[in-house]
Amino acid sequence: MVPSLPADSQPTPADVESAVYAIADRSRQAARSMGRANRAWKDKALRAIGSALLANKQQILAANTKDVEAGRANGTSAALLDRLTLNDTRISALADALENLAGLPDPVGNVVRGQTLPNGLRLRQVNVPMGVVAAIYEARPNVTVDIAGLALKSGNAVILRGGSAAAFTNEALIRVLRDALESVGLPADAVQTVDQYGREGANVLMRARGRVDVLIPRGGRELIQTVVNNSSVPVIETGEGNVHIFIDESASEDMAVEILLNAKTQRPSVCNTVETLLVHSGSTVLPAVAAALSKAGVRLHADDRVRAALPASVESLPATEDDWATEYMDLDLAVAMVDSLDDAVKHIRTWSTGHTEAILTNDLRNAERFIAEIDSAAVIVNASTRFTDGGELGLGAEVGISTQKLHARGPMGLTELTTTKWIVQGEGQVRA
Amino acid sequence: MVPSLPADSQPTPADVESAVYAIADRSRQAARSMGRANRAWKDKALRAIGSALLANKQQILAANTKDVEAGRANGTSAALLDRLTLNDTRISALADALENLAGLPDPVGNVVRGQTLPNGLRLRQVNVPMGVVAAIYEARPNVTVDIAGLALKSGNAVILRGGSAAAFTNEALIRVLRDALESVGLPADAVQTVDQYGREGANVLMRARGRVDVLIPRGGRELIQTVVNNSSVPVIETGEGNVHIFIDESASEDMAVEILLNAKTQRPSVCNTVETLLVHSGSTVLPAVAAALSKAGVRLHADDRVRAALPASVESLPATEDDWATEYMDLDLAVAMVDSLDDAVKHIRTWSTGHTEAILTNDLRNAERFIAEIDSAAVIVNASTRFTDGGELGLGAEVGISTQKLHARGPMGLTELTTTKWIVQGEGQVRA
Repeated sequence: MVPSLPADSQPTPADVESAVYAIADRSRQAARSMGRANRAWKDKALRAIGSALLANKQQILAANTKDVEAGRANGTSAALLDRLTLNDTRISALADALENLAGLPDPVGNVVRGQTLPNGLRLRQVNVPMGVVAAIYEARPNVTVDIAGLALKSGNAVILRGGSAAAFTNEALIRVLRDALESVGLPADAVQTVDQYGREGANVLMRARGRVDVLIPRGGRELIQTVVNNSSVPVIETGEGNVHIFIDESASEDMAVEILLNAKTQRPSVCNTVETLLVHSGSTVLPAVAAALSKAGVRLHADDRVRAALPASVESLPATEDDWATEYMDLDLAVAMVDSLDDAVKHIRTWSTGHTEAILTNDLRNAERFIAEIDSAAVIVNASTRFTDGGELGLGAEVGISTQKLHARGPMGLTELTTTKWIVQGEGQVRA
Repeated sequence: MVPSLPADSQPTPADVESAVYAIADRSRQAARSMGRANRAWKDKALRAIGSALLANKQQILAANTKDVEAGRANGTSAALLDRLTLNDTRISALADALENLAGLPDPVGNVVRGQTLPNGLRLRQVNVPMGVVAAIYEARPNVTVDIAGLALKSGNAVILRGGSAAAFTNEALIRVLRDALESVGLPADAVQTVDQYGREGANVLMRARGRVDVLIPRGGRELIQTVVNNSSVPVIETGEGNVHIFIDESASEDMAVEILLNAKTQRPSVCNTVETLLVHSGSTVLPAVAAALSKAGVRLHADDRVRAALPASVESLPATEDDWATEYMDLDLAVAMVDSLDDAVKHIRTWSTGHTEAILTNDLRNAERFIAEIDSAAVIVNASTRFTDGGELGLGAEVGISTQKLHARGPMGLTELTTTKWIVQGEGQVRA
């Protein structure tokens, strides 16, 4: 089913290139069928995949156990092992997500704009599938199902590179996905993997411009930077969030406490959690906010002025420049004191990854200036940064949160996995 | 004004990197001012640039003469010399284009979508400037003014790399642009060049991801491929057009003759001119179409079946595979006979660059199948391919014609030089 090289052969880079290009060509072929499939057909496929995941749970979990045991033997960290692990609940969640996806409108065929030109030409710009979507990620078997579902719903074929740490799980999942596609009369090749070609397979994917339409890296900073620096295929960069909240002089204590607790402690391991708090030196809310966070188990990495202003009962660590740059993704928060909105904006411009920043204020001019001057995918006034999320913002499903400016910025929905086509219809018009 | 190194120094790559990064940092600073400038202010700048171009015509033409003479001495081709040459008419055309740009709506601030969420959060997705736009091009001084005008109108700062062949002209033009910006109180650094750093300057631009938001190559295939393969900055690829027209069995002779003449001869040097004609073997229009094209001076590169079907009075050359791949941009046309719409689609899929393809037909099913199955930026039914143009499609101004699928596809207007920002406003909402 999933083609692989004989175990004793050592493929040359040229072998891998031609093999991966052949995969991409089959993907292009499959993408044509996916592009022609109507919504009902694609939704049927998503539901068939969901049912098949549940029906094949035992094989999938057995394969996953092999990966997890190998990871444990290799000394993989607990956090990574957790990401790698599937169980009953997680497989059910994957099936539920597919059911949710099936319930969403089809982005394909949506008319973006249209008009009749003075010469009578009828013009429409319509969403059409990208074609071949590739994803590179590591040790996250849930991404295999997740990204495949999103790509298929938007009429694309997908090529996956899920990494060696999850090789057994991904092989099992991809077999289930392909069989389910075939069971509803869609091409199995709409879901393929290049995992059998190792790192060189990923390298070929990155330079397959023209064969692969878009490449989505999912994972840590290092993985994303490698893809960004080496890919000639257009990349959508997702996920890095060094998120800031600025409390100005006018913000109320109650709101500040409630929003900071939510933004830092509700789910600290995700990209929209706050990582640095900036407090105006004229504000009086710092002691209450710091005490509440500390009580909730948050370790505060604070600059000297903040530490001097904290009550003796609140512990803190001295902050260094590293703290301003760090995306902790844990119960840690950097805290700095600033003397003006300008200083807050300057700090954010220096250290932000352009994901989400929020201001807590009751001052209209400050709110408007913050909105205008902060150059991030999402700018929030008086609400938690945790709202930068496809589901929360009404996109239905989320492909990822883009921190680049091209094509998509912020939470990406299904439409962001499509492109557009201009359709011009006439009756013999020529250009004057 | 335009910083340059002493003539006798040999800068190291590290010197060039820090110099270009410093330029990019000044560009980021200037971009903030441009992003805050309202439409009236930006339009005032565009008109000031137009007036300054006319007022400084003599200096610009004198600089241009130096470039043209150097080009002539180097044996530069007549076509390239023509592109390189400015004159009274062309400078007036540049000023007219800036006046036209000033008359267009501002893309910045446009609300793409918005809603009030169930929890009361007010959500808007708004067009905002990209920030720092860079362009790499060669020997086309008109692009200097053109791309700078488009970037400024959309609230961006621009960094130009215009190549050594046009160095004197570009230096003169950039001085005029910078002075005009300052004269209306906008930062001169909104227009900068890295020409003084030669090829290494271009290389640094290509890897300045995070410092440069988007890179637009303009020029020949080789230049564009170099940028695409070496840039970690997101690229918008424009311009390559191996454009096809397919005449099916049902198309009328009159329409076929008129559209082919227009699509091939109206302006053969541009990317939306037709390069290959595919004729269904059951059509009877070929002799009339070929005779009309031949009479208009078009050299036909035809396959054996086409040549056998041509009247003796129509000359033709035998086509090779190279002809299917060639974007002639001249009075040349490849002609092939196909036996079905499927064969036409197959030919197009093999050889198209994804720019524009047209079908001439009176058959509804063929028209719909062609629209659905052709994966190009523009698909045209019964009209000339010359309509794939920003002006013709109502975009007002054209940044280029994108042949990639990410961000923009087909003619790009001012909006395509912007990105979006999500703005979320609440009164203390936290995530449940």
